[in-house]
Amino acid sequence: MRQGKNVIVFENKPSVIAWASVVGKKEGEGPLGSGFDMIIDDATAGKDTWEQAESDLQKTSIAILLDKAGVSDTQIDAVYAGDLLNQCSGAGFGLRGYEIPFSGVYGACSTSVLSMINAAIGVNSGAFNKAVSSTSSHFCSAEKQFRYPLEYGGQRTPTSQWTVTGAGSALVSNNTGNYPRIEKAILGKIVDKGVTDANNMGAAMAPAAAQTIYEFLTDTNTTPENYDLILTGDLGMVGTSLLYELLENEYGIDIKSVHNDSGLMMYDLEEQDVHAGGSGCACCGTVLCSKILNELNSGKLNKVLVVATGALLSTVSSFQGESIPSIAHGVLLTSGRADDE
Amino acid sequence: MRQGKNVIVFENKPSVIAWASVVGKKEGEGPLGSGFDMIIDDATAGKDTWEQAESDLQKTSIAILLDKAGVSDTQIDAVYAGDLLNQCSGAGFGLRGYEIPFSGVYGACSTSVLSMINAAIGVNSGAFNKAVSSTSSHFCSAEKQFRYPLEYGGQRTPTSQWTVTGAGSALVSNNTGNYPRIEKAILGKIVDKGVTDANNMGAAMAPAAAQTIYEFLTDTNTTPENYDLILTGDLGMVGTSLLYELLENEYGIDIKSVHNDSGLMMYDLEEQDVHAGGSGCACCGTVLCSKILNELNSGKLNKVLVVATGALLSTVSSFQGESIPSIAHGVLLTSGRADDE
Repeated sequence: MRQGKNVIVFENKPSVIAWASVVGKKEGEGPLGSGFDMIIDDATAGKDTWEQAESDLQKTSIAILLDKAGVSDTQIDAVYAGDLLNQCSGAGFGLRGYEIPFSGVYGACSTSVLSMINAAIGVNSGAFNKAVSSTSSHFCSAEKQFRYPLEYGGQRTPTSQWTVTGAGSALVSNNTGNYPRIEKAILGKIVDKGVTDANNMGAAMAPAAAQTIYEFLTDTNTTPENYDLILTGDLGMVGTSLLYELLENEYGIDIKSVHNDSGLMMYDLEEQDVHAGGSGCACCGTVLCSKILNELNSGKLNKVLVVATGALLSTVSSFQGESIPSIAHGVLLTSGRADDE
Repeated sequence: MRQGKNVIVFENKPSVIAWASVVGKKEGEGPLGSGFDMIIDDATAGKDTWEQAESDLQKTSIAILLDKAGVSDTQIDAVYAGDLLNQCSGAGFGLRGYEIPFSGVYGACSTSVLSMINAAIGVNSGAFNKAVSSTSSHFCSAEKQFRYPLEYGGQRTPTSQWTVTGAGSALVSNNTGNYPRIEKAILGKIVDKGVTDANNMGAAMAPAAAQTIYEFLTDTNTTPENYDLILTGDLGMVGTSLLYELLENEYGIDIKSVHNDSGLMMYDLEEQDVHAGGSGCACCGTVLCSKILNELNSGKLNKVLVVATGALLSTVSSFQGESIPSIAHGVLLTSGRADDE
């Protein structure tokens, strides 16, 4: 069912019946540390390569998820998953071994929400009874692939963000018990304002976030005050201030009083030397699959719009001088206790 | 709605109301040449780089698609699209400029069918009224990324396949006129039998195809004779003979009389020097979005099971000695004229 031009309404209200997060040491030492299900002290996760470590994070987050939900992999009808690695190999290798039908997703750092939307569409329609959404990122595999080998010791620019090491997974089900519910969603369109600085993802992604938030509020006929929280994915400091500016100047919307950003929540920006904040698929993925879903479940939060952003570049496109196409996908989560609107 | 353990049933029978294919010169000279909507003689498509050329193919195929359907981009509720390039940049850059909500898909060479399944789930459920599935590949961008720069002139092994240059797009709609219909689908599970030879994709993918075909036939209680055609994606010569062997020896199923493979159909294997056949996302994508949908539309074909296969490797995973996880997704298309079963 659709509302307005852009919004999908899940009339059967698929629920998130379990969620799990695994993070690295640095993330565990941040302000949200106590909310994660597992913190790995060794960034290799006992594996030989960073890529294998990242896959292992995704594998582990799903193992914890299935355990928390008390279901086996063979009871899951689909997993929507992806990551930042070339050919989505974090997911491809992380999910190898599970007997779960796999639909690979690519949304860069918006993958957490994009996967959840697709899982919800399938569950809402009856195509699936239970579907998992999952994503991962790893600081070391991302630096190696997108920037410099860690051994090189390159200086990071002030606008750069720190890729979150971790994985977050959620189980979406047609079991409409007393769980957080997925009420609505919006798939974003590609926005490209000509930003070419691959060390300033926040600036590239902010216009996509602004457009998606504007469209969602317009189509649902709501204002920021109708939400307990509007959470963006990983805009960080630079992207967040640009988002405020764009929303106010272009759309006349002020979200400051209800907004937060996963990239600003993940680390202590004063103490943890992450420059403009956190980023990566796992940034929004693990914040969503810990604090946010915990608080929706407890009723501390009742209505949350999560808008995850992604920068759809590759190293090849950057080397070829291309600007950075960006996208933002949104999902409306409620505590399952209150009626929507 | 589900049938058996693995099959999704589209009770609202979403239709494919338009389809479009664009291919390169070599593909245009093959046996299917006359069925494609456009053949580009210049492999660069007038662009500066192979990657830009590939994006342009995808862009063009959607432009033709929208034109054939007589709709504008703003009337489309979602596009599911992906490709083989790092960070799915063929789709990300190809779709930039269209005002269509974009859900990125990664399924390697299974992307054509995986995208169509996701579009169909959304349309069947009412989340979308119209959704596009699209995919592309390009011989030159794929060789550069996965194997050797063309300038190097490397020898290709006998088991290697030729990546199809092209793009195929389909428009899935809830308009249940006299169009080919998407009746059922099956999402595949990851299968990895330990094949490590990145120049023998057919062997890596055949077990996934066998499993998906077996599960689909079992869950729908059908036999190969119930289909006019069982079309696999890009197994080529090596993978096709392995598929026959696996299906007969492990599952007691003989599909030979109704089977064909896009990788065997695309080129004249005697004359066009493509070794084991065609491959790439666009292999199944363009065969499906030309000959197959044309013949379903005309009623020459009534019931076709399309099973596209993907090898979920990356160059990094191969260099690290990993085997090749593979997957096969299936979709049941009917002419829309005959009842199913």
